[in-house]
Amino acid sequence: MSDASSELEITARTQIRRKPDRGHYDLATIRAILDEAFLCHVSVDLGSGPVIIPMAFGRVDDDIYLHGAAGNALLRAIARGSDLCVAVTLTDGLVLARSAFHHSMNYRSVVVFGTGVQVDDVDEKRRAVDAIVDHVIAGRSADARPPTDAELRATLVVRIAISEASAKVRTGGPIDDDDDLALPIWGGHIPLRMVADAPIADPDVPPGVAVPPYAIDYRRVSSV
Amino acid sequence: MSDASSELEITARTQIRRKPDRGHYDLATIRAILDEAFLCHVSVDLGSGPVIIPMAFGRVDDDIYLHGAAGNALLRAIARGSDLCVAVTLTDGLVLARSAFHHSMNYRSVVVFGTGVQVDDVDEKRRAVDAIVDHVIAGRSADARPPTDAELRATLVVRIAISEASAKVRTGGPIDDDDDLALPIWGGHIPLRMVADAPIADPDVPPGVAVPPYAIDYRRVSSV
Repeated sequence: MSDASSELEITARTQIRRKPDRGHYDLATIRAILDEAFLCHVSVDLGSGPVIIPMAFGRVDDDIYLHGAAGNALLRAIARGSDLCVAVTLTDGLVLARSAFHHSMNYRSVVVFGTGVQVDDVDEKRRAVDAIVDHVIAGRSADARPPTDAELRATLVVRIAISEASAKVRTGGPIDDDDDLALPIWGGHIPLRMVADAPIADPDVPPGVAVPPYAIDYRRVSSV
Repeated sequence: MSDASSELEITARTQIRRKPDRGHYDLATIRAILDEAFLCHVSVDLGSGPVIIPMAFGRVDDDIYLHGAAGNALLRAIARGSDLCVAVTLTDGLVLARSAFHHSMNYRSVVVFGTGVQVDDVDEKRRAVDAIVDHVIAGRSADARPPTDAELRATLVVRIAISEASAKVRTGGPIDDDDDLALPIWGGHIPLRMVADAPIADPDVPPGVAVPPYAIDYRRVSSV
């Protein structure tokens, strides 16, 4: 794993051209955004133009893991080496400028380019599946019944290096034209956040099995 | 605009192959998911593999509008007729099964395939920009300073028909293997929702300009 302060090399694909001051190429920023997200959007060309699929994911050091059914067409294309893009976006707020033109959002986003490789090593596959479960809800993989060998065989896992990637971050209020500031129009921003409600137990949970702390305190243990 | 009960034709790209019972092809479901989302992810191949960009969007009848700077490479590719994919995903909850294998999420997602066209007609361009502003915060376009002709010229707007599209929806608790139900492992789901906090006024708002109701009551007027 590279040092968190490492800066990734800027490439033609990762260079932030619009509002370049919002671009970040350091692994610390990229990792933090990835770790706060529940899901990513993955795009691959399956032969008739790009396809986007939302997916869960896990991060181990500077690799992203994706998984799915062994027959999943998008994962199979990644396993064959197709060019891919992974995007993660956190929406932090709505920005109301005086002008329609300057309306915006506050967000933190990451985009990763590259290719992936199929993971066949059983130990790495188990680590990857645990990482994906724990990415969504930290600590869960230690409690859940682990995958059987048959379940692992039915699961396709791919690994994608976080080596060609960038982040883009916008924060704060509107940036209006000076001439618009005296207009009698309200400007400002509305913060948004994702919250978890109380967990809902499955009716078949045996008596005496308590709700685990990571489900009760989901809002506190996670930064979503 | 087609009748909301209209079912879109299923194509090779829109057919839901994994968990087909979660697939929906009716415009009412597709429109409702699009309208609840703040942003979409758009993918186009710019010549070196797929690129995903998160963007605001608007919907007018059965068209999606995207906009951005006139020099935006992804929008320019769409204006030239590149194949595209637009994805919208709402994350509604985390699903904790007894087995790691059956962990899942509750979500509502839409994917739209096709090509777009550049909007040059000034009236349509204004309607599109209003629709994008109002998509994020209903009613805002009537209060904001409208785009000047110069601002409109600096904005590239594209229109994408919602004609090749599908939705996928998962709700409820875990679906475990029968053999796992007696295990002493908690199973259930954790509902998630996006909430808005109190609006934060820009320091330059002139005295006497009130916070508009759609910003104060954002949580109530919107279904996010």
